[in-house]
Amino acid sequence: MADILHRIGVLSSPDDVYAALTTVEGLANWWTEDTDGDGAPGGVLRFRFEPGGFDMKVLEARPGRRVLWEVVDGPAEWIGTQVGFDLKQEDGFTIVLFRHEGWREPVEFMYHCSTKWATFLMSLKQLLETGTGAPAPRDVRISNWH
Amino acid sequence: MADILHRIGVLSSPDDVYAALTTVEGLANWWTEDTDGDGAPGGVLRFRFEPGGFDMKVLEARPGRRVLWEVVDGPAEWIGTQVGFDLKQEDGFTIVLFRHEGWREPVEFMYHCSTKWATFLMSLKQLLETGTGAPAPRDVRISNWH
Repeated sequence: MADILHRIGVLSSPDDVYAALTTVEGLANWWTEDTDGDGAPGGVLRFRFEPGGFDMKVLEARPGRRVLWEVVDGPAEWIGTQVGFDLKQEDGFTIVLFRHEGWREPVEFMYHCSTKWATFLMSLKQLLETGTGAPAPRDVRISNWH
Repeated sequence: MADILHRIGVLSSPDDVYAALTTVEGLANWWTEDTDGDGAPGGVLRFRFEPGGFDMKVLEARPGRRVLWEVVDGPAEWIGTQVGFDLKQEDGFTIVLFRHEGWREPVEFMYHCSTKWATFLMSLKQLLETGTGAPAPRDVRISNWH
């Protein structure tokens, strides 16, 4: 098993970060514009991109603290993996500890997703600090795999 | 053991990417301006940042193909870990497969370094594509840990 880990600090409240992780409007403003579904526990969120997308079942959503999703549809490598966001306050920042865990093998696609998650988390930070993120299809291009 | 993985594609030749990974001038233009030492096999490169730095022993440097360093001085969590860059050509890009491997525990500092490496790899990409990277101390701030 292999995990992708990231840490950012957002100059915003935990409640604002939490809203960006649990509402369709918030998610559409930093990850992909083509987002719908339900971000509450038991709900399913659907994220779509040019080449495909991901369906996430919401396993946990604790306001201001923690969001945890399980991938229920999408690329084979993602199915069954979990994506988690833990929030805490530190030095005026809301710290986001991000984990995309349970990859069966550290395949090249995992390398790509790791870098891509970093750029999307920076998009989340920018959204909350400036009002404008860079969700797909306006996301930062990192390679031939987009 | 835990590893940080990333993948970027650079619109530049493998030789140019290799030069940016093995020369003091190249490294200073995307990672940290305060770089010196020797990027050839057996050499030691010294990278310094505001709060400290890293000394890397060059284990491998195969032109246009692969660079591998071992961390010989720096933060306790880094010592003994290895940082590798594998290069290949694909769709007109030079693909960089990056690994920072051998972390003993997935500590919070590892989460931070994972995201920070992503921003530095984007700096490498920008340097080679536009002529200007964002090395420390002009690097992208991601949190209270810088």
